[in-house]
Amino acid sequence: MHTSQIWALLNAVRDQSPLVHNITNFVVMNNTANTLLAVGASPAMVHSVDEVEDFVAISQALVVNIGTLYSEQVAACKLAITKAKVNNIPWVLDPVGAGATPYRRAVAIALTRLQPNVIRGNGSEILTLMQQTPVGKSRGVDSMHGSEAALDAAYMLASDAKTVIAVTGAVDYVTDGTRVLAIHNGHPLMTRVTGLGCSATAVIGAFLAVEPDAFLATVAALVVFGIAGEMAAKWAAGPGSLQVALLDALYALDEATLEKHAQVAKKL
Amino acid sequence: MHTSQIWALLNAVRDQSPLVHNITNFVVMNNTANTLLAVGASPAMVHSVDEVEDFVAISQALVVNIGTLYSEQVAACKLAITKAKVNNIPWVLDPVGAGATPYRRAVAIALTRLQPNVIRGNGSEILTLMQQTPVGKSRGVDSMHGSEAALDAAYMLASDAKTVIAVTGAVDYVTDGTRVLAIHNGHPLMTRVTGLGCSATAVIGAFLAVEPDAFLATVAALVVFGIAGEMAAKWAAGPGSLQVALLDALYALDEATLEKHAQVAKKL
Amino acid sequence: MHTSQIWALLNAVRDQSPLVHNITNFVVMNNTANTLLAVGASPAMVHSVDEVEDFVAISQALVVNIGTLYSEQVAACKLAITKAKVNNIPWVLDPVGAGATPYRRAVAIALTRLQPNVIRGNGSEILTLMQQTPVGKSRGVDSMHGSEAALDAAYMLASDAKTVIAVTGAVDYVTDGTRVLAIHNGHPLMTRVTGLGCSATAVIGAFLAVEPDAFLATVAALVVFGIAGEMAAKWAAGPGSLQVALLDALYALDEATLEKHAQVAKKL
Repeated sequence: MHTSQIWALLNAVRDQSPLVHNITNFVVMNNTANTLLAVGASPAMVHSVDEVEDFVAISQALVVNIGTLYSEQVAACKLAITKAKVNNIPWVLDPVGAGATPYRRAVAIALTRLQPNVIRGNGSEILTLMQQTPVGKSRGVDSMHGSEAALDAAYMLASDAKTVIAVTGAVDYVTDGTRVLAIHNGHPLMTRVTGLGCSATAVIGAFLAVEPDAFLATVAALVVFGIAGEMAAKWAAGPGSLQVALLDALYALDEATLEKHAQVAKKL
Repeated sequence: MHTSQIWALLNAVRDQSPLVHNITNFVVMNNTANTLLAVGASPAMVHSVDEVEDFVAISQALVVNIGTLYSEQVAACKLAITKAKVNNIPWVLDPVGAGATPYRRAVAIALTRLQPNVIRGNGSEILTLMQQTPVGKSRGVDSMHGSEAALDAAYMLASDAKTVIAVTGAVDYVTDGTRVLAIHNGHPLMTRVTGLGCSATAVIGAFLAVEPDAFLATVAALVVFGIAGEMAAKWAAGPGSLQVALLDALYALDEATLEKHAQVAKKL
Repeated sequence: MHTSQIWALLNAVRDQSPLVHNITNFVVMNNTANTLLAVGASPAMVHSVDEVEDFVAISQALVVNIGTLYSEQVAACKLAITKAKVNNIPWVLDPVGAGATPYRRAVAIALTRLQPNVIRGNGSEILTLMQQTPVGKSRGVDSMHGSEAALDAAYMLASDAKTVIAVTGAVDYVTDGTRVLAIHNGHPLMTRVTGLGCSATAVIGAFLAVEPDAFLATVAALVVFGIAGEMAAKWAAGPGSLQVALLDALYALDEATLEKHAQVAKKL
């Protein structure tokens, strides 16, 4: 994927300002909305069963994140996803902490069966979706597995579920079961800010709204987010200022910076 | 309205530190609480039906915001509002995304009928409350209409509902159905930070707690908030740092800055 | 307590990165998670009755905070606490605004009876738990009483409930009913950022995960948090930048800074 394509997609997000419907967790709602605004999209957090179907119908993408799931929210997710599929609105799943509890794993697997266009998770989450990780080894919402360790699972899951899988970590891998690309952007300090994985998922949602090839949209989103993280880390004095600087960097990201820092390679 | 009156009201908020009860959305709770603390008020976010009536009774103002509404929260709003009216506690309504779905519009209109002292919304939201905007044209929680386009609707709604209406946007208009003032403060980058409209509504709540004339309280709150936004924009490198700087600016706002930057004009 | 012990405990948190399960309020979830990450712990916010028991069982500490309580969350708290006690997982209670409403007071007292290892509150909250404060005098979630005014109540409550009580304010007091230490760290600007008391409680949770003596863990956590606040205040231009700088300071805190600034004294 050429940098010029990524730049074109970022500009499409900025120009079209797609409405991205998020059903997400309470920890990251503010942060996620600000990330979507910084990248040029129009975010909305709408989760009531009384309106999710109507809201997704006016949206250009749907983001489903189970970070602080509860039964009524799961019901809302299913309603919204069903409507999104009828209306050909792309949706992305973030199976936060999928292996942490039996409930969480069951919900994550059930949502995966509803055929998201993209699933983004860390190594442990993607392994869990392939049912290769016993619950007992979970470390909550943080990953116990590097992204590389989940690459085979990602590849199989993408083939089985006919979806795009992004496994993020020190290196991000994106696969649709045929193609695999490795993205070497981002910065280790990003793991010390809560919910940046959730932010990355939301940015994927924004790119899905402007690019029908979910594989390309996902790669572009992760490159943009990772580079913004690198720029922010140069400026930041720690995780607090990194969170702030990341929004500034996403908002300011220009073609020269993208060109210079994008690190996308084929994974052989 | 003279700048000295605005300064006097800001000082009243800082001196009295009114307890402002918020029933608001999950996206902006942290941000709203910090905004109220920065302006000198004492915020509380309390939404359970088991305690909203008791809590509003010890508060000096109530803020109701439907950004992430759900049925039990709507019930809590109605309980709190009813108690507020009995106890002569002023309340302000923020009809976030009122036109986005039929459910949201119905709730916003029902709450409007409960006679808020002030309603603050963007152009699309205020037009929706006058039932002039079909749902299908919504863009989620962002406005498709400039504040000027909703000025006539605001004027009529203020007269009909006997309330003060603030339509915010590039220019903010405040009307009680008789008077109309235009406020030319604020900065375009503020639209790239989530929930600053919600913050403005909360600041109106704080000013309502110290000034019985809801028209004056609303104008003063929007001038203070807008100027803080301008000061923050000078310092900020993007939307992330703007959000941080806005709190610093609200906290530090002095009389000379207010005097120099306040832009309030009669709308003919 | 020697500074070297505090430093050793901070290093234990950083090395072990304990999983801290939070059932907390919606205002501070993001902030609390970022505080725990900055101090070196691994935070999770999990509150559904369908999974709290399973989640607490894989955690090293539990934090219960009633800031935005509602009936289902209270049920989740009780399930999680019961499981934590069976599994010998320490837990800390933050009785936010305990005196503000009869509902809130009843819940806070009921949770206190479930024998938390530590309770951290402001003066008014600790007085309320001793039932010495009538509800009508509440000021919402802010304290009307200095920490010193609640010291006798803290001492009695610690003895009665066989727990450690931390009363925080201009000076923080920690007592287990036998020992009492006074911590003179922190900065007044911290009261203008929402939820820093909640953050302090969460840091206590992280230290409880690595130190079985709850009294020492609590003192160490409050010293670390207070010094980080002082460092942040030097850098900050107001409450917005203080919140950001506090996370940076927690992340960066080194032994020399701890040694130089720790202010722990016996309270006679």
